[in-house]
Amino acid sequence: MKAFIEPIGRLINRLTKLPGVGAKTAQRYAYKIIDMSDAEAEELAEAILRVKKEVKYCKICGNFCEDEICDVCKNRKSDIICVVKEPKDVVAIEKSDKFNGRYHVLHGTINPMEGIGPNDIRIKELLERLSKESVSEVILATNPDVEGEATAMYIAKLIKPLGIKVTRLAHGIAVGTDLEYADLGSLSRAIIDRREI
Amino acid sequence: MKAFIEPIGRLINRLTKLPGVGAKTAQRYAYKIIDMSDAEAEELAEAILRVKKEVKYCKICGNFCEDEICDVCKNRKSDIICVVKEPKDVVAIEKSDKFNGRYHVLHGTINPMEGIGPNDIRIKELLERLSKESVSEVILATNPDVEGEATAMYIAKLIKPLGIKVTRLAHGIAVGTDLEYADLGSLSRAIIDRREI
Repeated sequence: MKAFIEPIGRLINRLTKLPGVGAKTAQRYAYKIIDMSDAEAEELAEAILRVKKEVKYCKICGNFCEDEICDVCKNRKSDIICVVKEPKDVVAIEKSDKFNGRYHVLHGTINPMEGIGPNDIRIKELLERLSKESVSEVILATNPDVEGEATAMYIAKLIKPLGIKVTRLAHGIAVGTDLEYADLGSLSRAIIDRREI
Repeated sequence: MKAFIEPIGRLINRLTKLPGVGAKTAQRYAYKIIDMSDAEAEELAEAILRVKKEVKYCKICGNFCEDEICDVCKNRKSDIICVVKEPKDVVAIEKSDKFNGRYHVLHGTINPMEGIGPNDIRIKELLERLSKESVSEVILATNPDVEGEATAMYIAKLIKPLGIKVTRLAHGIAVGTDLEYADLGSLSRAIIDRREI
């Protein structure tokens, strides 16, 4: 006797495609979905289909949007552009409420091991924007990993000759972390980038 | 600027209906769904809709099934019936591979605090089966919590006069647990129910 009848087995299998979801968790989710009202389950299924249909990428900055142009590009006047790897990084920065400029989403970082070169991400589009728009500063907010750093260096080299200020997000000990628990990388960076008070 | 555009916000909201999924996890799942191919996302949505449409309950035992009668009731000849609270308990016991009898799913346990009495769960159906089918033993496999124990006691009182053997699953220290880490309830039970070797 197989453990699950076909529709349940199929749903469990599909749910394991979600990040960090193994067979046990998928099983829990599947039971919950079986117990949902028809309306609730339909709403969930519809939300999945609609997100695929309705989420587009802004023609200017590459951020998530519903139309051609995203809300940030439509409504914000600023001469600072923050360059990030993915649209979800925009969400993270927006939540911090400390940045009021515009964005440019690269949709990837340079990664020779996986065959991703400078032409595979939206660097050309960034340079085009810089030649048309009035921009005083570009913040390179790619992740502090090997690919993110390399991409930031690459873009910095292209932009600096244009006379535009190029900055990088500060890295150091995470706020709230005790010294003894800080990872070596963050601690080294915090010492190198120490600032006068 | 709101953090999420409408379709993403809606999907995150729907995903938090899954058990143990908070806003952060729902956000991770939503990003993954956005990154899925259209086909993958459609398969997930369809699996959700189909599980609601295709999962029915067996007319005899109350287990999950696709037709009128479940595979166990169709294919197994046995005079032992295992009584469980929910269909997912059948899955758990089937996985153990130690039971080869039939089942009866109560779809609940007696719970006066929530207004669930003996007539609200499938006890009547169990008694009907016992009067028609040839049954030599009923295993009461409800959970070892207050409601499960009370329900087992209630059913045992009804069945014993019929001359049918009534048993309960063994409870004790979980296999693999060291004595010092065993919870008090399990340890007490293990001492009371100790067996001769």
